[in-house]
Amino acid sequence: MSKDKYQKQWELVSQRMEKVNSELLSLTYGTLVTQLLKDLEQVDAINAQLEKMGYNIGIRLVDEFLAKTNMGACTCFRQTAEVVAKLGLRMFLGTTAEVTNWDQDETSCSLILHENPLTDFVELPPSLSQLCYSNLICGVIRGALEQLQMRVNCYFVRDMLKGDDCYEIRLELTELIREEFIDDEEN
Amino acid sequence: MSKDKYQKQWELVSQRMEKVNSELLSLTYGTLVTQLLKDLEQVDAINAQLEKMGYNIGIRLVDEFLAKTNMGACTCFRQTAEVVAKLGLRMFLGTTAEVTNWDQDETSCSLILHENPLTDFVELPPSLSQLCYSNLICGVIRGALEQLQMRVNCYFVRDMLKGDDCYEIRLELTELIREEFIDDEEN
Repeated sequence: MSKDKYQKQWELVSQRMEKVNSELLSLTYGTLVTQLLKDLEQVDAINAQLEKMGYNIGIRLVDEFLAKTNMGACTCFRQTAEVVAKLGLRMFLGTTAEVTNWDQDETSCSLILHENPLTDFVELPPSLSQLCYSNLICGVIRGALEQLQMRVNCYFVRDMLKGDDCYEIRLELTELIREEFIDDEEN
Repeated sequence: MSKDKYQKQWELVSQRMEKVNSELLSLTYGTLVTQLLKDLEQVDAINAQLEKMGYNIGIRLVDEFLAKTNMGACTCFRQTAEVVAKLGLRMFLGTTAEVTNWDQDETSCSLILHENPLTDFVELPPSLSQLCYSNLICGVIRGALEQLQMRVNCYFVRDMLKGDDCYEIRLELTELIREEFIDDEEN
């Protein structure tokens, strides 16, 4: 699928979407992170919790995504990453990503984002320098792809909240989950 | 301002908005409520906490609303309620409300919503029949109007999650906050 096709697909999808302003999402997400900061003392535990919450969201969002886009299965991981970057992130976060830094066997790449509405109103104090504020996104991607039979690792390697010039999410395919169809007639 | 004018205003505002799909908002909000259910034992405390969280969000959202709509001050509470119903809710929740059931002195009314994206994936178990799941919205309205010098009570009286045929939010003006301008020259 060429870039133009993603744009065309987006225009179709966009008409079918219930749209809201991103600010309520940003602020609600900020409220969630603040609540976790109150509940959990360790930043590592908060990062893990955000990722897990995202995973549970991703499992459900993927149905919405498939229903709205009418997309069939991607033919390879490269295409999957492009669809996440050009349609998935655009649909749910209102922003797209570039896909770069592929490894040789095309099982890992980076998604580069120059905007992230989750962090619109956010500044991290030095005491939270280890907080992976937007980790929910990594969880969402992992949950969604697992529903599509792809087990991935997904984590931030660059973060504008920490002074980097973009957000970089590393996406690594670790396993293609094979579904076993058991034919009852034969057993 | 007539209904047509709200529609025109909406069309202008809509072009200036960063839009996201409402599902990520619904699911992130659900995650927040779930976290509060884990943290707080009493449903009353959760309802109060959601309202307070909404209040803090409303204080900030109102700036966004004023910037995007270029609206001046409303001339009366009746107009304020219409703007909340036709523009505010539409901008941040993607849905509008009817304004009805005015009392005689036009200081309280009901906002009737037939849709509420926050509850898109939600069913309340009987044990949570007292949970005011969408109470964040009431807090947002209270916080936003307080920034505009109107102190209000705001609470749900009907809720589709509890089997009602619509959502009804009661909105009561309790005080117009008068700002005192102190002229330093004169003191």
